[in-house]
Amino acid sequence: MKVLVTGGAAFIGSQVVERLLMRGHKVVVYDNLSTGQMGFLPPAGSSAWASIQFAQADLLDLPRLKEAMQGVDFVYHLAANADVRFGTNHPSRDLEQNTIGTFNVLEAMRSAGCRKIAFSSTGSIYGECKVIPTPEDSPFPVQTSLYGASKLAGEGLISAYCEGFGFQSWIFRFVSILGERYTHGHVFDFYKQLLANPNELKVLGDGRQKKSYLYVGDCMNAIETAIEKADDKVNIFNLGTEEFIQVTDSIGFICDCLGVKPKIQYGGGERGWIGDNPFIFLDTKKIRGLGWKPELTIKEGVFATLNFLRKNQAVLSRTEDRAIPAQPSSKAASEGASGSAFF
Amino acid sequence: MKVLVTGGAAFIGSQVVERLLMRGHKVVVYDNLSTGQMGFLPPAGSSAWASIQFAQADLLDLPRLKEAMQGVDFVYHLAANADVRFGTNHPSRDLEQNTIGTFNVLEAMRSAGCRKIAFSSTGSIYGECKVIPTPEDSPFPVQTSLYGASKLAGEGLISAYCEGFGFQSWIFRFVSILGERYTHGHVFDFYKQLLANPNELKVLGDGRQKKSYLYVGDCMNAIETAIEKADDKVNIFNLGTEEFIQVTDSIGFICDCLGVKPKIQYGGGERGWIGDNPFIFLDTKKIRGLGWKPELTIKEGVFATLNFLRKNQAVLSRTEDRAIPAQPSSKAASEGASGSAFF
Repeated sequence: MKVLVTGGAAFIGSQVVERLLMRGHKVVVYDNLSTGQMGFLPPAGSSAWASIQFAQADLLDLPRLKEAMQGVDFVYHLAANADVRFGTNHPSRDLEQNTIGTFNVLEAMRSAGCRKIAFSSTGSIYGECKVIPTPEDSPFPVQTSLYGASKLAGEGLISAYCEGFGFQSWIFRFVSILGERYTHGHVFDFYKQLLANPNELKVLGDGRQKKSYLYVGDCMNAIETAIEKADDKVNIFNLGTEEFIQVTDSIGFICDCLGVKPKIQYGGGERGWIGDNPFIFLDTKKIRGLGWKPELTIKEGVFATLNFLRKNQAVLSRTEDRAIPAQPSSKAASEGASGSAFF
Repeated sequence: MKVLVTGGAAFIGSQVVERLLMRGHKVVVYDNLSTGQMGFLPPAGSSAWASIQFAQADLLDLPRLKEAMQGVDFVYHLAANADVRFGTNHPSRDLEQNTIGTFNVLEAMRSAGCRKIAFSSTGSIYGECKVIPTPEDSPFPVQTSLYGASKLAGEGLISAYCEGFGFQSWIFRFVSILGERYTHGHVFDFYKQLLANPNELKVLGDGRQKKSYLYVGDCMNAIETAIEKADDKVNIFNLGTEEFIQVTDSIGFICDCLGVKPKIQYGGGERGWIGDNPFIFLDTKKIRGLGWKPELTIKEGVFATLNFLRKNQAVLSRTEDRAIPAQPSSKAASEGASGSAFF
């Protein structure tokens, strides 16, 4: 099968690519390398690389996307602006990269006659849902972030294409994903801070935000399970663990792992930033009903992440508000690759 | 107060404009005249016209929108592509006119320091909800039309701006609205067909689709009530009657009113078109809880609509797939105006 993966050189996308290659598929990696890294893909010239067609391009470049879509049987649409926290600094970015980007993927698929799509949505689309753990059919949510709004719009478009154009979709509402190749989020931020100064840690909010996390390998297993076993027109699954932790727990894991005891300064307030949801915990009965369950606890996921960061410190050169340089250095590339084979 | 109304020269928007003028406000009418008509506004040179600032422009023209937004205190964002049925013929139209259009309205407001917005959403965003009558907090819906998806995206953006930028919003999920200045929908289509040939009527689907309708004057009362009495950050209201009718009932009303007995040809199938919802009936307890109730029954609303169409046959020159000419003829304009004063 020929499969196109948008965001295929980034954290989660590159894991999907790796798994697809393992399964013997041909893979089109479509990535603008804004956060993706060539080092997350098999080395050029390797036998795995021979099964990859790489397009360094943006989702907003529809002609290029249509060209890349030729002969594709299935799309994993994972490319997105995922900087939830900085949404209000640049409101058009979520609209462009996530909503219009998703529309372009669907239009390119329609033009190429491809009709099957898996999509990375987010638990953020539940806003501040009162029902916790939050199931897929929770009460109609009110959006609290531009990121959530843009992913909701993406889900809506995909569902409408399923009804209107005979598409079939698998929509995954992720909690935060952790693990190898993780390049943004609180574990990343805390690790980076503590590396620069092991004696001090600045934390957004009061540290009592409760969130759930999922290890990326478990995420891959869940996606494979859902696509294999669920066959509705629109298949929607929450993906997460049956645990949640407080930010302070997470800090404890990180400090234990690094052997540091920093003085912690809390920014204060229930939320880390505008639109932050102080309690994210998804009901995952539906995906568990298909026989999947996570293999790593949140704590183990945090440790796997720290282990990756320790071995791949070049990824830390990324600034907070989205900017791994578009072309990673060859050092980053080779080190990035060292964190790969974990399936 | 200075109020901007997008789509202010069209069916519902022009009714809002009329009411705002009655209340003594200054009104900026922003309309691209794709379905709007100058004849739906007070005549140029009249005293009412002196309170209007008219901008013939599209929502996609952000600089123009920002310019029109200067000094505005409140926005009624009613402009939209409302051709639910023909969405799949031109998938980008809903995205552009409804989703990106709404984003532009919000950005123009932000740049002008205006933070209050009323928005016309739709019962279509509930998809094929199993809970009927459908309340505002029904289970998380799956979209079935590009129109519904685009309005859901608009709601999401508005809610995110409320959280992120301190906006306040009133979001109205309409059933189909009927009444004076109605220029599209099934009553329009049936009337037009029967005028051309009173002996035959072609009906999409099996005629058993069950839908709810609301008279536009009642819709205006509901909007005024909600904005006056509801003061949350995001205020969401279903607007509809406590009745629904079958398409066949509606045909009966129309035939009675016109005194015709056509042979009816049904297209067949549960749905009139792809993405059509065979049963739309909204729970309106929330808006009723504020003291509002509709004054006209659905049947009376259909009669008011037919009465308007009879007196304003120029509006029938519109083709089905959206196209009142961008510049209505002066005949259409003057006749359109005759259907106005009904408040």
